[in-house]
Amino acid sequence: MGTGHIKKSITRWHEMLESRDMSILNELLAEEVVFRSPMAFTPYSGKQVVFFILTNVIQVFENFRYHREFLSEDGNNVVLEFSANVGDKKLKGIDMIQFNDEGKIIDFEVMIRPKSGLEALALEMGQRILAFQANT
Amino acid sequence: MGTGHIKKSITRWHEMLESRDMSILNELLAEEVVFRSPMAFTPYSGKQVVFFILTNVIQVFENFRYHREFLSEDGNNVVLEFSANVGDKKLKGIDMIQFNDEGKIIDFEVMIRPKSGLEALALEMGQRILAFQANT
Repeated sequence: MGTGHIKKSITRWHEMLESRDMSILNELLAEEVVFRSPMAFTPYSGKQVVFFILTNVIQVFENFRYHREFLSEDGNNVVLEFSANVGDKKLKGIDMIQFNDEGKIIDFEVMIRPKSGLEALALEMGQRILAFQANT
Repeated sequence: MGTGHIKKSITRWHEMLESRDMSILNELLAEEVVFRSPMAFTPYSGKQVVFFILTNVIQVFENFRYHREFLSEDGNNVVLEFSANVGDKKLKGIDMIQFNDEGKIIDFEVMIRPKSGLEALALEMGQRILAFQANT
């Protein structure tokens, strides 16, 4: 499988978060990418909507830091553990990311704990989506 | 590191869930194990309380199935992806488990999505904890 591509993509992902250069996100997402939110069961599909969600989530998290990294045996799936603050709430979370053999992200699932952190994130994201809809 | 011990412990974990033989859980948990709940930020400490929580969570989940497995580079940490139902709610989750070099579980963190699934689990677990307290 494409382990070399995927290690490079994970490195690019970290570079994106450090530099806040969202053109890297554009380069990493596959056209058919699916996003599975910590809030809703039904996934979001397509590069444009997933780009919008991820750029906003990144802005909402404060003191964002990655910790452990976990790989599937085939090397095409990774779990990145993180911690962050949203307002006065502390939270833990994971990004569970599936890559295709070209190293593009095809599935991005986020889980957050505890419940108070998830609720704080849901509130902030809801406000951003409403503001976006009001401006379009 | 103790990768051989840990692969054996992961196998034992799966055997426990299939057989519902909770003596295996007793064998796998270290005395000083810490449990990080999807509901609350503050962790629970100690084998007795973690044993109680895990045996109850296992009973609450219906149609429980594991999917992808992810390992940290040092082999001492694993993420197990699962899906389950609680009542009429579907949920996804992960067990993020840290082992010591003897293959005993020292840290067990659970994350659940979406919010409706987490709330259904919280409700069921709350009732079980109340029933337990009423009987002791």
